[in-house]
Amino acid sequence: MSYKAINLGEKFGLFTEQWQPKVIAEMNDYQFKIVKLQGDFIWHDHKDTDETFIVIEGTLRIDFRDGAVEVGPGEMFVVPKGVEHKPFAESEVKLMLIEPRGVRNTGEESGERTAANDVWI
Amino acid sequence: MSYKAINLGEKFGLFTEQWQPKVIAEMNDYQFKIVKLQGDFIWHDHKDTDETFIVIEGTLRIDFRDGAVEVGPGEMFVVPKGVEHKPFAESEVKLMLIEPRGVRNTGEESGERTAANDVWI
Repeated sequence: MSYKAINLGEKFGLFTEQWQPKVIAEMNDYQFKIVKLQGDFIWHDHKDTDETFIVIEGTLRIDFRDGAVEVGPGEMFVVPKGVEHKPFAESEVKLMLIEPRGVRNTGEESGERTAANDVWI
Repeated sequence: MSYKAINLGEKFGLFTEQWQPKVIAEMNDYQFKIVKLQGDFIWHDHKDTDETFIVIEGTLRIDFRDGAVEVGPGEMFVVPKGVEHKPFAESEVKLMLIEPRGVRNTGEESGERTAANDVWI
């Protein structure tokens, strides 16, 4: 049988829109999503799950109510469940998110940044 | 408060031994582990969970009973639960594994490749 690895660079080359996570793989009930971000996200949290950010290109800043973290290429950060955070990227950032299937990107908030779930690429 | 991203390159610089996964982060009950591999692993499977391989440097081959996949830098592959596999690396590979906490690297097999769990770095 023929098996094929998932190439992140190739997947990022398939779209240009920002703030719209695309699923590239699943592991049990978790999804790997890639997304391009630029500008400000909104304050939100995820009550029931941690959320993992792995930066592939660019620098992501994640603001917390009491501080911030900068995440550059080849770096990762896990935002604990229930912790309010607001991603920000001055220039476009390419990143991979890992979280359980069905988590809404804006948590319990909604608005123009709320993205469709389960969009595969 | 001061927050710090996890830098994969920095973490890989902290050890030289092969086949000994080190935990660098947790997300809910899942662990992110980094490991250096070279040579042959053993045939095994994980009955209860998928297992994610993300290659950071080098090329990993994962053999299956009916084929194989090559996973290079910036590529990933999810081995489904219950599927027998045997990782192999001609030259040293640096990779990140993602799987639930407590999964034994050799599945139900044991031997010289069986590594301690929950070793953080």
